[in-house]
Parts: sequence; C-alpha cells; structure tokens
Amino acid sequence: MPSTNSLNSIFEPSSVAVVGASTNPEKTGHIILKNIVDGGFEGPVYPINPGASEILGLKAYKSLLDVPGDVDLVVIVVPAKAVPDVMRQAGKKRAGGAIIISGGFREIGNDALEREVIDIAKSFGIRVIGPNCQGVNYTASNLCASWPLITAKGRMSVISQSGTVAAALGEWAEAEGIGISACVSLGNKADVSEVDLIEYFSKDPNTGVISLYLEGTGDGRRFMEVCRNAVQRKPVVVLRPGRSSKGRKAAESHTKSIAGSYVIFQGACRQVGVTSARTVEDLYDFSKILMYAKTPRLVTDRKEPYKVAILTSSGGSGIIAVDCAEEIGIEIPGLSEEAAGRLKEVLPPHCITRNPLDLTGDTSAERYETAVRELSSSNQADAYLLIFGDPIPRASEVVSRLKKDLESRGSDAEIVVCYIGGGTLGQEEVLRMQQQGIPAFRTPERAMRAIGALAGKF
Amino acid sequence: MPSTNSLNSIFEPSSVAVVGASTNPEKTGHIILKNIVDGGFEGPVYPINPGASEILGLKAYKSLLDVPGDVDLVVIVVPAKAVPDVMRQAGKKRAGGAIIISGGFREIGNDALEREVIDIAKSFGIRVIGPNCQGVNYTASNLCASWPLITAKGRMSVISQSGTVAAALGEWAEAEGIGISACVSLGNKADVSEVDLIEYFSKDPNTGVISLYLEGTGDGRRFMEVCRNAVQRKPVVVLRPGRSSKGRKAAESHTKSIAGSYVIFQGACRQVGVTSARTVEDLYDFSKILMYAKTPRLVTDRKEPYKVAILTSSGGSGIIAVDCAEEIGIEIPGLSEEAAGRLKEVLPPHCITRNPLDLTGDTSAERYETAVRELSSSNQADAYLLIFGDPIPRASEVVSRLKKDLESRGSDAEIVVCYIGGGTLGQEEVLRMQQQGIPAFRTPERAMRAIGALAGKF
Repeated sequence: MPSTNSLNSIFEPSSVAVVGASTNPEKTGHIILKNIVDGGFEGPVYPINPGASEILGLKAYKSLLDVPGDVDLVVIVVPAKAVPDVMRQAGKKRAGGAIIISGGFREIGNDALEREVIDIAKSFGIRVIGPNCQGVNYTASNLCASWPLITAKGRMSVISQSGTVAAALGEWAEAEGIGISACVSLGNKADVSEVDLIEYFSKDPNTGVISLYLEGTGDGRRFMEVCRNAVQRKPVVVLRPGRSSKGRKAAESHTKSIAGSYVIFQGACRQVGVTSARTVEDLYDFSKILMYAKTPRLVTDRKEPYKVAILTSSGGSGIIAVDCAEEIGIEIPGLSEEAAGRLKEVLPPHCITRNPLDLTGDTSAERYETAVRELSSSNQADAYLLIFGDPIPRASEVVSRLKKDLESRGSDAEIVVCYIGGGTLGQEEVLRMQQQGIPAFRTPERAMRAIGALAGKF
Repeated sequence: MPSTNSLNSIFEPSSVAVVGASTNPEKTGHIILKNIVDGGFEGPVYPINPGASEILGLKAYKSLLDVPGDVDLVVIVVPAKAVPDVMRQAGKKRAGGAIIISGGFREIGNDALEREVIDIAKSFGIRVIGPNCQGVNYTASNLCASWPLITAKGRMSVISQSGTVAAALGEWAEAEGIGISACVSLGNKADVSEVDLIEYFSKDPNTGVISLYLEGTGDGRRFMEVCRNAVQRKPVVVLRPGRSSKGRKAAESHTKSIAGSYVIFQGACRQVGVTSARTVEDLYDFSKILMYAKTPRLVTDRKEPYKVAILTSSGGSGIIAVDCAEEIGIEIPGLSEEAAGRLKEVLPPHCITRNPLDLTGDTSAERYETAVRELSSSNQADAYLLIFGDPIPRASEVVSRLKKDLESRGSDAEIVVCYIGGGTLGQEEVLRMQQQGIPAFRTPERAMRAIGALAGKF
C-alpha cells in the first residue's frame, strides 16, 4: 500500500483537471468546475470536454493528453464505462490523485469495472477517492472539488459515507462562523478508505478535529489502531447508523458491505477514545466543542465526576440544562455557603445564588464576568456553562476576556456558551464567540450534551 | 372567577397604555412601547411618564388619569412598590386587562405586595398577566407588548413560565416562515394561569396549536380537565423540566412553587392526550407538525402500528431516519414484491426500491412525485417522509402538489419533509413548504421524532 503521503496530490495538488466538465450549469461536471474556480484554487485548472473550447472562461481541452504540462489531480465526472480510459490518460500525465464522482460501479453490481479502474490506478501510483462520491473540499488549498461550495476556513475535517451528511456539516460550520478544514465524501472506498484519511488528517496541521459518518468499516482492527493513535493528537468523533436491526439492513444495502454490530463498534470506540455521536446534530456539536477544548477527552480515565457551574439569565434554561446534565452523568454541584455568601456580596440581591446561578433577565454581560471570576477563585468546576437568554450586549467581549483570564491563571476550566433567543444580536454574538474559539449552542440541551462529550460520556 | 372572555382586553384591546414608558432605548419601558408601535397595533397607544412630553412620536401623559377617554389594556413597567397605585388608576380608567412586567413580588418574597395588587385588580374586574413576566404578543391584533418583536402571523400559541423559551420559539417560528399566533410569558401567575390561557386559546380561531413550557401547575386536576377539552379542538404540547431531582429543585427555586412529580404529570398528560416534549427543540418541532397535521393525536387509541414510507435522495439520511424510527416505535414496513416491481417500472434502474426508497443523489423533485403517486396507490402508509439531501429545484412545488393530490383522493396520509443541506435553496424551500402547511425539518432525527409526536408516541 502506498504511503498516505501520496494523498498530497488529492489535498494539495499543483494542478487540477475536471474530466467531464460541462457547459450546462445544472450538470455536476459544471458545478464542480465552478466550485473549484469560485473557491479560489490558485493552480492551473483544466476543463476536459471534447465538444467545448472554453468553459467558465477557462480554455477547455479535448482530452487529458492535450493538456500542456503535468496534471496532478484529476476529477472525473464522465460515465462509468469511460473511466478506465481516463485513468490510463491520467497515468500518462503522471497524475498523483483522482477523485471519481461518477457512479455505476460496485454500488450497482459492476464490481469488475471498479476493480479494473483501481488496478489501473495502482499501476500508475494514483490514489483514488470514490468512485460514486461527492468529492473533496480542502479549504487550506482553496480546493472545493465538491458541492456545495464552502469556503470558510476552519479546523473541522469531515469524512463521510454520505455526501449529504458531509455537506450539511460543512454548511452549518460555514453559517456559524467556524468553517471547515476538509469535507471528504468516501463513496465506494475502492482505494482510499476512512482509515487512510484518519491517518492523514491526524497529521494534518490544518485539522483540529476529525468528524466521521460511517456505515461500516472494512478492517475494524486497523480502524481502531489508527484511531488510537489519532486521538493522541486530536479528537475523533463518529456517527455510525445501524443501531437498529432495520437501520443495519438499510446501511448494508446502501454501502453493499457488512455493517457489523453497532454495540461492538461503539464499545471499541470508547476503548480507544473515539467519541460516539447519536445524531447528526451530535456529530456537529461534539466536533465543535472538542475542536475548541483545552483538554479533549483527557478526562475519560479519571474517577472524579465532571463538574459544571451554570450561570444563566434565564431561570428556565438553567433548569433544562440541569435535567440534561443529570441524565448524562454530569455533576452540577451545589455552592458552598461561603461561595454563595461571597457571590451575594458582588451580585444584586435578586440574583439566585445557587447552581444554576440565576443572574435574572435584567443581567448585563458584565454580571457574568463578576460571577465567573468570583466562582473560579475557589470553585473547582471543570466547565462553566454561560446561558444567555436575551439580547445582552457585549456578551462575546466578556466571554472572550473570561477565557483569557482563566488561561492566564493556568486554569484548565472550559467556557461553553448557550445563546438561546436573542434575535439577530444573538446570532451575531454566536458567530463572534466561535471565531474566538468559544463553542456556542442554541439550546441548553445541545450545550449540555456537548459538555457530555468533553466529559467523555459518549 | 371572572369568565375567560375577559381576557379579550389583554389580547384584543381597544387601546393600550404603557406605564413606565421610557425615553432610554435600553430600558424595558422603551423597548415594549417601541415593539407595540413597530408591531403595528392600530388602536391608540398612550405612553405614561411623568417626565416626558413625547416618546417615539407619541404624546406622553403624566399619569393614567390624564389620558383622555378609556384605557383598555395597561402594560406596567414601573418599580414594584408603585404598582398598586397604578392598578387603582387603571381601575378608575375602567381598564379590563393589565400586563405587569415589573419584578419584585412573590419571586423575592414580597407575597403581600403581590396579594395587594391582585386584590385591587379583582375589585375592579381587571385580569392580570404576571407580575414578573416578559409580556404578551398576539399577532392577530398586531400587539407585541413583549420582546423580542415578532410580527410573523401564524397559528402557534406559546404559553411559558420562561420568557426566554417563549422568545426562542417565536424567533424560530418567524425565521422558518410559520409565525405565531401568541406568545404569553406567565411570570408569577398571580391571576391568569396557564389553565385560563389553555382554555382561551382552545377557543381562539387564530390558534392552531398550544405550546406550553411549564415548571409546575397550581391545580393539577383543573389543568388536566381543561387539557382534555382543549385537545378535542387542537393539539397541546408541553415541555416540563424537573425530570431529575436536581432539575426539580431548581424548578421549585425558580417559580417558588411545588413542581410535583414529573412521572405522574407525564402519565396524566398521556391520558388526556397532551403531547410531552423532552427538549426545547421537541417542543417546537412537535408543535409545528401537529399544527399542520390532518389527524393530530387521533392515532393514540388505535392498535395497529404507525407506518412510514421514507423516500430519500440521500442513502445515509434514510438509514439515520430508520434507526430513529425503530427507537421510538414507528414502523418502516418493507415493500411488497408487487409494489417494488411497479416502482422499478417507473424509476431509473439505479434507484434502490426498498423502504427507505433511495432515489439517489441525481434525483429530480419530480422523481419523488412519481414514486409517492405509485406508492400511495396501494401502500397503506400513515405518513410519507420525503428527505431532500441536495439543492433540488422545485421541491416545494412538487411537495405541495403531492399534498393536494393525496387530499383530493381522500387520503389521510401526512407528508413530512426533511431538507438537510441544500444551501440557500434548501432554506428557501423549507420556508416555502411551511408556508403551504407542510412541516419541514433540517435533520432526519428531528423529522422522525416529530412523526413520533403525530403517532402519539410522546
């Protein structure tokens, strides 16, 4: 097997050709070319189309062989039966990588055609993503050989057997201001598998968290080995459907592979330190919080409970968070009499000095600051959950100051935000906080579940 | 007890005074006045402020007694100790309703002051919302005596012991194009309780669903009686925190009332046909689907399983939906050989003719139409879940046609949409679908849980 270094031609190619580039804006062969161009890829881009002289302002070539000079990455969008010839041409052009979008291979029973394509690729040393996939987006190279077009740079790398799940995560990350490092749609995994990609991204300086949607793994033992190493460098989160018997059958039908037991898979994940998501929202939320965390998953070995102090402007939201915490085994410790007394001295009398600490609806952002500083001087909370339930001006500034303050005092405590409601200001503040590395969630339950991921509960 | 008809002065007042209206844009007394004006309330609006001659272009009065003519609704934002006098003035002006935003009553131990206020109100026949609340929004009257300003008219009426939860639901409903009929923040419930409001909204032609966030109910027996009647007319959904022992203590501390047992409450809800939400997202999602449903909660009595046919462009999303369905007891029945055969005749060969029916990533909106028409000609599905996993043009048109088609054939089957990903087009399509009465969700799990609410599983 070639070293994973050779994936460089896929993620950091010096040039890209799109074979099957189309002039019709509704065709995938047009959309991908457009996304590569609009995404700002800086190397040469070659549309290949025997019937066009120019597409999207770029000179088009009749075949790969007509391109002057080398082609590093070949993106293939032609019908399946034409793919072997394209791969041979790619070999002659000394390509290092191919992304085969085209379907019509193993997923509909054409195993021989798929084998032929991979044999050609191997003979030329070309690494292949797909076939039957939604492509690759790697923002550090401004390379969106996929759809939708996502350009917001971040540190989340998504590897997915569902193009849609990958696209959804990318869209959410872009909308929320956290961006992505990569989105890779695996397709049939005829050559490059999730294991190769986990290994690659674990060493990739642009990746801060690896987020997986997987319906099954080919080599479970190697998957676990690679994950065990990867989590030493950065968190790995996985959503694996097929928990139910019918879900498992549907997964096997989708990927034409053996899904294996969900329970065994989940147990193995826990053992090697991989975080298990239960829903698509979990996958996104857990990735987000672990990416920003100071101590991702380091708490799994410890015996003491994970303790959270909740500060809220909304009494109801605090209660909802407490319910959720108890259900997942997070402790919301009561305040000592002494701590409550000191808080009473610095807060207005109508605040309820318990945990959750109810700063009430008239709170300023600064009241959170006063309270966290007071609490953190004695309290041993592992995380502070700050719930904002109204448009509270300057919340992002205060939260950012608090984060730096805790860090400067050598505290490992995490700051997590729930901004529920708050209208347009709330949305803008969530964006600002996340751009400063503070994870922010839109409901108390999602915030607390994410804290559960921090605490190693999933 | 006065008849609930007298709540008309609160929801459909002929005139409104804001006592404590402020010229300072950061003060609640300014924000509420501004929201009443910007919301488009058509009757006279009187700012009351002894130190101002004009606020927001409206003539201000020194006291309620200076207002020429009657005042129907009085919104009160002055300090607690001044409220009894304001109420006496409101009585002299023959007001029918008062919304007391001001805090400083029972919630901080000032029980006597609260009793005094209510005694005055009763002596004049004034119904009171609050005190210590976030006000009332009733869109049919263009009356937003609350915050944030939400003007999108819809059929969801929210009754909440948390102003923040109410505001969040309102904001989501506005952003998603479904709007609200009402948002009422209960506060201390010194006079008007959730029970009065459930009764009122159950008879309100503008309300299609009643959505409750409740930390405790004063009179459990009457609550259940009123709910039993209300659900004959429209669905009722409740989120009640305090499931855990610490959550229950926090709830009692927040509302200064006995929360009671969650298990007993939930059992009673199930018995009278009230739907129980577990999270804030549930509360919103369940309200949305039940509001649009043809047969809300009518299925609780039946013995047969609730059956869903899933059609998807995204194989992965279909599998995720199946897992979620099995966990909540929804059946995803396999296709008969005959049905599969007929589908194969009308669909391209690469579609996977099972349930979930995988129309694959290259699907058009029209392929969903073909498939649902074929399936519904024989299949006995209670609901069709249509999952769109890419920007698919014309999806909202097709879904709307399908809905009408099913209705014209006398079918009770529901159409539910999950639009995951799809970028800007996806968001616009979700808006369009919901404006046509088709509930649309952004993840497969949320769509399937909502179907669970339809099926009486919660």
